[in-house]
This record gives sequence, C-alpha cells and structure tokens, in this order.
Amino acid sequence: MEKKVLFTGFDPFGGESVNPSWEAVKQLNGFTEGSVIMVSEQVPTVFDKSLTVLRQAIKKHQPDIVICVGQAGGRMQITPERTAINLNEARIPDNEGNQPIDEPISPDGPAAYWTGLPIKRIVEEIKKEGIPAAVSYTAGTFVCNHLFYGLMDELSRLPLHIRGGFIHIPYIPEQTLEKAAPSLSLNLMVKALKIAAVTAAAHEDDIHTGGGELH
Amino acid sequence: MEKKVLFTGFDPFGGESVNPSWEAVKQLNGFTEGSVIMVSEQVPTVFDKSLTVLRQAIKKHQPDIVICVGQAGGRMQITPERTAINLNEARIPDNEGNQPIDEPISPDGPAAYWTGLPIKRIVEEIKKEGIPAAVSYTAGTFVCNHLFYGLMDELSRLPLHIRGGFIHIPYIPEQTLEKAAPSLSLNLMVKALKIAAVTAAAHEDDIHTGGGELH
Amino acid sequence: MEKKVLFTGFDPFGGESVNPSWEAVKQLNGFTEGSVIMVSEQVPTVFDKSLTVLRQAIKKHQPDIVICVGQAGGRMQITPERTAINLNEARIPDNEGNQPIDEPISPDGPAAYWTGLPIKRIVEEIKKEGIPAAVSYTAGTFVCNHLFYGLMDELSRLPLHIRGGFIHIPYIPEQTLEKAAPSLSLNLMVKALKIAAVTAAAHEDDIHTGGGELH
Amino acid sequence: MEKKVLFTGFDPFGGESVNPSWEAVKQLNGFTEGSVIMVSEQVPTVFDKSLTVLRQAIKKHQPDIVICVGQAGGRMQITPERTAINLNEARIPDNEGNQPIDEPISPDGPAAYWTGLPIKRIVEEIKKEGIPAAVSYTAGTFVCNHLFYGLMDELSRLPLHIRGGFIHIPYIPEQTLEKAAPSLSLNLMVKALKIAAVTAAAHEDDIHTGGGELH
Repeated sequence: MEKKVLFTGFDPFGGESVNPSWEAVKQLNGFTEGSVIMVSEQVPTVFDKSLTVLRQAIKKHQPDIVICVGQAGGRMQITPERTAINLNEARIPDNEGNQPIDEPISPDGPAAYWTGLPIKRIVEEIKKEGIPAAVSYTAGTFVCNHLFYGLMDELSRLPLHIRGGFIHIPYIPEQTLEKAAPSLSLNLMVKALKIAAVTAAAHEDDIHTGGGELH
Repeated sequence: MEKKVLFTGFDPFGGESVNPSWEAVKQLNGFTEGSVIMVSEQVPTVFDKSLTVLRQAIKKHQPDIVICVGQAGGRMQITPERTAINLNEARIPDNEGNQPIDEPISPDGPAAYWTGLPIKRIVEEIKKEGIPAAVSYTAGTFVCNHLFYGLMDELSRLPLHIRGGFIHIPYIPEQTLEKAAPSLSLNLMVKALKIAAVTAAAHEDDIHTGGGELH
Repeated sequence: MEKKVLFTGFDPFGGESVNPSWEAVKQLNGFTEGSVIMVSEQVPTVFDKSLTVLRQAIKKHQPDIVICVGQAGGRMQITPERTAINLNEARIPDNEGNQPIDEPISPDGPAAYWTGLPIKRIVEEIKKEGIPAAVSYTAGTFVCNHLFYGLMDELSRLPLHIRGGFIHIPYIPEQTLEKAAPSLSLNLMVKALKIAAVTAAAHEDDIHTGGGELH
Repeated sequence: MEKKVLFTGFDPFGGESVNPSWEAVKQLNGFTEGSVIMVSEQVPTVFDKSLTVLRQAIKKHQPDIVICVGQAGGRMQITPERTAINLNEARIPDNEGNQPIDEPISPDGPAAYWTGLPIKRIVEEIKKEGIPAAVSYTAGTFVCNHLFYGLMDELSRLPLHIRGGFIHIPYIPEQTLEKAAPSLSLNLMVKALKIAAVTAAAHEDDIHTGGGELH
C-alpha cells in the first residue's frame, strides 16, 4: 500500500544564505522509494506563519506521515527530536521580526508533545548507512520547536491518523567556511531523510534501545 | 514573614567521588538570610527512591519553596531549569543499577511541567554578583529530570501552595583534574544558590527578559 | 612541465578501523590533473618507522612535492599545518607500543620547522570549492608532528629542491557513529587534497592573508 | 637562599574590561613564600612594546625566574606553555592597532624556544591543590606567544642564568556573564601562580610524566 510522506524545510534565517533543511528536502520532492512517495514544501522561518503554511500543505497533500526538518547549526549529527515544548522564546528575531518571549504556542495545549515517529529506529537505520545520527531531547524554543509543537497539535486534532515528527540537521560544509562549526554533506542529509521516510512508513512502533541525556 | 526554603542535593554518581549539588546545599542547611530560612536534605541518585526521599523531606520541613539541585558535568554556568519532561531514559545506570528506557515518570501525568521558580530573575540576580548563569530549557532524561518532574507533580497534588524548581550546577574544579571539562568554584555555587533562595522567596512572578535556544 | 606530488597517509590507530588520511590519499594514487601527477604511499603510525618508510618513498618516487596527511579526530576543517616542533610526546602508544615522552625527534635539529607549502593559498582554494579549511599552528606531539618534522628535516638535508608539508583532516562520518565528534565526507577530503597538490605545484610563495590564533 | 620571581600580566584586550593575568599577578606583588620573593609588572598587549617593558622589568628586578602570564579565553585549565614559535600572526589588532601577519618575532632567532620552567612539576603541584592544570603545546601566534618567545630570546642572550616561561590562564567568572565560556576563580589562579613560582624556584629540572597532544 502506498504511503505518502510530506517533508517540510525552512527558508534561510540568522544571516545564512541557505537553509540545509530546504536544500535537502527539496531534492526529495516527487521521489519514490518502493511504495513510499515523498513530497516537499518550504515553510517560512516565521512564528505562526510557518504553521499556517504547514496546515495548508497537509490539506493539499493528504500525507500519511509528516516530517518537518530544520537546521541546528553547531550539531554534528542527524537528530530526530523526541519532544516539543509549548513555549516560544526567541533568542533572535524570526524572518519577519517577531521575537516572542515566554509565550505558549497553544494557550490551551499540553505542556509538551512527543514525536509520532519511530525515532530510535530511524537513528539506527541512518547509522547503518554510515551517517552519524542520535536522538535529541530538546528542539530548542525557536521556530523549529514551534513548528514541531504546532504539527503535533494539529495532528492530534485531525480526524485522520497522520503521524509526524521533527528532524534537526547540521550545517552543510558551505555554511562553515567562515565559522568554526561542524557540518555534514548535503547528499548524506538527503540519504538520511530518505531513510527516515521509509523507516517511518514501515513502522509505527519504535524499538527500545538505549539513549538519554544526563542533563 | 518567614519563608522556609528546602534544598536538595544528590549523592555522587557516574564514577565521581563528590556531587557538587550536595557539597553546595549542605553548606546552606540552617542558614538564614533576612526572613529566609534554608534547610537541606540529600537525595540518592536513584530513580523513584529519590522521589520518596523528597516527599518525606517536604513533609518533614513543610517548606514554602523547594529547590532541587543537581550536577550537570560539562556545563559552564549555574542553570535554573525551565522544563521537566515525563520521561525516564537513562544513558547510564543509577546508583542502584536501574536503567529505565522510554518510560514515563508518571503514567497519568502531563508530558511536561514548567518550573515554579522565577528563573529569569534568579539568573539576573546571580549574574549581578559576577557568577555566570543562564536559563536551561532541558534537564536531560536522567535522575535530575526525574526528580524535577516528580517534584512538580507532587507540588501540583499537595493542597498547599508550595513553589519549586530545579537548578543544575557545573563540576567543581576538583572534579576536573583528570578530564578536560569546565568547572565553577564551590563558594560561587553556594552564593548563587543562596541568591536563588532569596529571590524565589521575594518574588512569585518572573521577569520577561530575553532568552531561548535556537535548537 | 610535469610536477610529481607524493602523498602519504597513515594506517589506523587509537582503536579506529580506518584512517581517513590513507582512505583519502590512496584514491589519488596515479591521479593526474593538468601537469600534476600524484602518487600515494601508506606509512605506519609508528615513531621512526614512519620516517623510514617516508624516506624510502621519497627515494622511490623522486617527487617535486611531498604532502603528508594525518587524521585529527575532533577537528572540523581541512587544516594545513604551519609548524612542526622537535618533540615526541605520546599521549597514547603508537601502533608498535612506543610511547616516547619529552624526547627530541632530532637531537641536533632545530626546535621547529615551518611548512614548505603555500598553506594560505591552499586554504583559500579549498574554501572556494565550499570545503571548510583553516591554517593550524600546532600539529600536536604524536606521530603526525613526528612525520611532519622528520619530513622537513629530511628535505632540508637533501641536495634537491623538494618542497613539503603536512595536512590534518577530520574524521569521516563512518568513524563518528558511536562518538559525538565532527566529521567531513571522504569525497570532500579527496577533493581538498587534490586542490592542495595542484596549488602547491603552481605556487612556491604564499599569500599574506589574515590568520593566527589568540592562544 | 632567596629567589626572586618576576611575574608579568597583560592589560585587557579584545573588548574585555579586565585581564585575569594582571588581576592575578598584581596580587602577588611583594608576596613572599619561604625564600621566594615575588614581584609583578604589567605589560601592554602590544607587539614589541610588551617586550620593551619586559626587558626593563628584568633589568629593574634582577629576578632569578620570570613567569609571564596571559589570558587564554576559552581554556578551562591553568596551562603552562611548552613552546614559543617565531611567528607573529594577529587574528585581531593589538591594543595599539598593530596586526602583523606572517612575520618573525626575531628574524635571526630560532624557529622556536622551549620553556625554561619545570612545567610538568608545576602542573602536578597545582593539581595537588585541586586546581585543574595541563601542559599546553601551543601558545598561539598573538602577543602572548610573542612575549613568551621574546622572553626566552632575551634570557638566551643575557649573561646571567635566569630561567623563564609562560602560563596561560582562563577567563575569570565575571568575564563570562554574557558569553558561554569556561572560567576559573581568581583566587584559584593566584594560588596556582604562587605554586608555579615556588615550584620553579625549587626545581630546575622537570619530571618525565605523560602528556602530549594527538594533533
């Protein structure tokens, strides 16, 4: 049975000229692997507006699975996120100048949502291909966490069974020419996201391997 | 009006011979600053048992405020925590060999709790004394997060108005002789925790200064 | 006029199953770009023996330029080295169990040698291709620095005008699956080393762009 | 027999309002421990001028030992330096706007000097007091390395037997309030430098314990 996976990627923010999340997911638009069909949409790095675009994309594509992707500059691995918290707290302005502080994403929503993706399976499958990956337990408090929380909130309200989650990815090498920061090649990111889509399509449940952060 | 602040600190774990959280809070046991009385109790670095000891300490001391403190080896600053998540995921065994994976702390509890302390005020006051401090948005998934979540869960059930939260502190210098890791002197930690107690006693509400993490 | 560039790479050490320096340079063995011919030899991660193998390789290939390459696990960029110091000080044993402490590489040699390669040009050309690179001012005190110093010492004694130097490269992604460390894809390393060879063949002198380390 | 130790510390640079090296060594001016007398002088964070001031201070105080101290923002430990290289390469301008690139400190000098202090002993004695310390094998290419090289060059020319070297120290906590960087308390730095002076006065030779950097 066919499964459709919707990817989203952000436009560049924070002075960058590219955003690896969009560079990666746009390559997967229209891509098919086995019975898994992938489509991609760009969302703006803007509070609320990103969620509006996401909701429209879900309506348009009617996906089985939604995987939102975002840049985590400074990380070294592909990091599927475990938790979205109900908090907007912007260290820098978003792409339209919004800088919310200490605000809930959804005033009536729960304090947090868990991912709906089998993230430990995804990490394991990505690593099998030689690409560094690890579960992350915090998606920050900027637009990435906002979109992740908003996605899970939306999916919890929809009458359909759509699963979803968020994956953070490092800078690509081109972004690190003038700063000392780790990076990962775009082709590895594309490969990792493809694996994530196929793994999520094949498995609803996750495995119970080790993990965790001491603090 | 007098206010009583209960501090807790952990026993050593992870191969360490001291835990700076206990080294610091034990110095505050019996200490009074203005109308703020401080008491301290040690809790074991053990899932569940730490919560049992915490509940007994709350019963015994009848505090107005509870501040649990834990070691965050590798951090450079005093970091009051914003969020406790409902997840036990232990990268290493606790001090009695428990290593839960993917388990809720409270099966019926909310996905997360927010701190009940004015953490931005606390950070600001600590920094005024020249001590590095910052809000943290993740307390990890080990016993520290467990105790923090359990504390907030307990306080939410008690008929009394007790406020509480969690503060992570770095290694002390003595712990870093054979590893390359940042540290902070014990006397600065004691001073910072004293400031935290006094600030929490004086203010229920927090300030709305900037903050946040991009990811 | 043809120029021959001899590359060397090390065998794996420190518990690794591959060494990216050999993985990269072996791909360049026999490769020609314009008038630049590249050959590659493996050297053992062993004090003294690495130098013996290097001297034989120089004799065998009669190169115009020698570029020794080594793994710098933890670095994020391609880092041509500026300085080799006359010191063996091994934090871990080499591949034959030698662990010299506080010993000169050459008892009568100078305290340090400078690279003979136009390393700022090389960095600039590598970055033009979107690959992160930076000059490094310390090659450590293990077998990499040993080989670099020994190379420059040898070249200073030979009656021929052979130029040479050392380039450190990061882990490849496959090496970082079970450790949190930055990496760079092998194909980018191969590309960067090719650029280094061509740039070194074309220019004896370096450019005077900024650089340096505060400490 | 009395031994006189001359300490130097720098004035603030790089936008800092204090320099921990001067804050620490000024506390040791006039201090006596056993037969060791300590004096301190400030040097400017300026190429050449720092050396002029150093030479005058040596002339004035006629010390047995000279220990120059500098700030290494970002380091976590007290780090006596092993090597000074004959290179000025300034990533930022010094306090008078000089920004040399690729220039020798002494055109006729050796490529590098080794420390004249028993730095492994010093590290060991500092650690015995619970203060993190480690040998460093690179002092950078800014004014700190410049002063260190210039000191060793001067001592090599003087007809007297004066020993000397350089110690880098981290930020103090007050400097890290608005940046995420490790720090060490000033009183620990003062204590560590006192230990360095006493150890250097008591021992000309060093011990042969492990050390080194892989790269």
